[in-house]
Amino acid sequence: MNVSLRGKTRHFRTVSFDAGKNAVRLIEQRLLPHEFRVVDVPDHRATAAAIRDMVVRGAGAIGATAAYGLAQGAREFRGDSTARFERHMDRVFATLKEARPTAVDPVNAMLGVRAAMGVGDGVRSRQELALRAAEAFAEDDVRHCSELGAHGAPLIREGMRVLTHCNAGWLAFVDVGTATAPLYAAQAEGRRFHVFCDETRPRCQGASLTAWELAQQGIPHHVIADNAAGHLMQRGEIDLVIVGSDRVLGRTGDVANKIGTYTKAVLARHHGIPFYVAIPLSTIDWNLERGVDIPIEERAESEVLGAWGVDRRGKRVQVRVANPGSAARNPGFDVTPAALVTGIITPVGILRPGELWRRRAKLGGPAR
Amino acid sequence: MNVSLRGKTRHFRTVSFDAGKNAVRLIEQRLLPHEFRVVDVPDHRATAAAIRDMVVRGAGAIGATAAYGLAQGAREFRGDSTARFERHMDRVFATLKEARPTAVDPVNAMLGVRAAMGVGDGVRSRQELALRAAEAFAEDDVRHCSELGAHGAPLIREGMRVLTHCNAGWLAFVDVGTATAPLYAAQAEGRRFHVFCDETRPRCQGASLTAWELAQQGIPHHVIADNAAGHLMQRGEIDLVIVGSDRVLGRTGDVANKIGTYTKAVLARHHGIPFYVAIPLSTIDWNLERGVDIPIEERAESEVLGAWGVDRRGKRVQVRVANPGSAARNPGFDVTPAALVTGIITPVGILRPGELWRRRAKLGGPAR
Repeated sequence: MNVSLRGKTRHFRTVSFDAGKNAVRLIEQRLLPHEFRVVDVPDHRATAAAIRDMVVRGAGAIGATAAYGLAQGAREFRGDSTARFERHMDRVFATLKEARPTAVDPVNAMLGVRAAMGVGDGVRSRQELALRAAEAFAEDDVRHCSELGAHGAPLIREGMRVLTHCNAGWLAFVDVGTATAPLYAAQAEGRRFHVFCDETRPRCQGASLTAWELAQQGIPHHVIADNAAGHLMQRGEIDLVIVGSDRVLGRTGDVANKIGTYTKAVLARHHGIPFYVAIPLSTIDWNLERGVDIPIEERAESEVLGAWGVDRRGKRVQVRVANPGSAARNPGFDVTPAALVTGIITPVGILRPGELWRRRAKLGGPAR
Repeated sequence: MNVSLRGKTRHFRTVSFDAGKNAVRLIEQRLLPHEFRVVDVPDHRATAAAIRDMVVRGAGAIGATAAYGLAQGAREFRGDSTARFERHMDRVFATLKEARPTAVDPVNAMLGVRAAMGVGDGVRSRQELALRAAEAFAEDDVRHCSELGAHGAPLIREGMRVLTHCNAGWLAFVDVGTATAPLYAAQAEGRRFHVFCDETRPRCQGASLTAWELAQQGIPHHVIADNAAGHLMQRGEIDLVIVGSDRVLGRTGDVANKIGTYTKAVLARHHGIPFYVAIPLSTIDWNLERGVDIPIEERAESEVLGAWGVDRRGKRVQVRVANPGSAARNPGFDVTPAALVTGIITPVGILRPGELWRRRAKLGGPAR
């Protein structure tokens, strides 16, 4: 999407590839929103480190980075022995996989690239097919987000006030994003609307990343404390809620997402405000049967006991906010039951959460 | 309440008076939770500055500080002319009132002190009566909070998990506090329980002040992000909610309190969890007819766009968290309708919010 640099607006993707340099090109997300920098990552080991160290984050974005990283590793190989090449590729795959051992997107993306390159005849052909498959993966990510945006855009009517939580924006994908996709599509169609960004404690991805995205794109918005959404709903100042998701259960429509999402869904129901969840099809979990069984990661206490930001001189610092003697609970995610979800916005259309299982053939689900 | 200092537990009040030094003694709340310091404020002008600069905050605490400040000012007077003494007292009153021009508690407290000293015969007598009246005001504040605690304590049963929001603790009063009073009383009765402190963005009074109070008092607790309470309720980990209030409408039972309180009330109702509000009688507004008419202060954007804390070297710093180009909305309070409130805990007992008007005679309300 757009980034304003010294008064000029330029288009960037979160992840791309420079074939001439054999480099993965990433937006250095750890510096946002305080500094915008694009980095060229020179080899597949450095790409694995970039995934591990959160230069890039977000399901779609780390999937594409791993896919490009695999192609990058393939193109680093010198020689003609396909046997030696495949052993090299095993090591590249393992290196990239280990960067985020619990994430499923990098592995799925890389399996796709390896399958595509396997049909190549000889090293040169396989190297070329690897890059083509990685490019196709990235293009698919962008296309799916754009399709999702096209389906969701009619929900955003002229003058609406939309609440969003955390960051399911283009920075979490290759471009466009999920929860943000209907906003960008509605803007492209010429409609004006206002967005409230929950700051999304403890990591504040809403205040930092979503607000940055919207500012770059010229969409009017306010950051609010997570505490303020209920008051704004009560006063009739919010018309619609759109969030992303880390996992939607195909069997029930239950939605796992960043901590605080469930609270917003309860508030939306209490006030009769529509609550939508925007996802690519890869987010649907067709196996798990009950939302309560989704494992909820308990993250570091320090995230709740303090805050990250920049000081007056622009230096990044962590401050302790809480009483030094006190402990914290820090569940990273929560589960919103399907009954509180108005609709799931997907690349193939908007569905009611209870419809996912019945429509599983269309959604890439299992036969039974 | 208790404060641990170098391994020893000592009792402190938020506000007290040293008659020998003619000094108002305050806990320097701006340093908490990172440093505990008691300051002797040497004259009434400095006491006004301490109120203005938030060395002391909280309805009961600034009321008592103003009452002591008025007695302090009275005792600064040298001479025997009652006429000159009363003109001096007019100036002292005005100086203390101007310290927090919109706050009602300092004015009410000082009117009481001035009425009590007016019956004195001569300067010496009026000076003495002023100090006695200020002491009586502080004792009443402590007694009301203790009575409130005694009424609320039976709600806290063995093993309960209690959620609280913001700080309505002893630091906001002379001692004991309101939302915390039932906790301290239940602890004194030997019951064990666990408290979850909402961090209470944007100013984080829960993470800093309430957590500090509970730690000093040895009450097990966790700080949580405001986003986490809904998840904990959904998982059955919260049994009861107790909050304070800035204003309860005597005619309806609607409750104004720190932003985010309303959200917790909606969540509590959704999960069938009791939601109580603890207040002294001075918090009841007998005039206003509708909760929606309570003015909601819109506070500085910078509170939401950043955070206060201490860095690694213990230095207090403010950091910017949000995107530099983005604006914020920052409503400081919200209104919880009486329908979501299980009970109002007062010094004269627990009442349903709809009962306040009918019981107004007992609660110090108007005749009609």
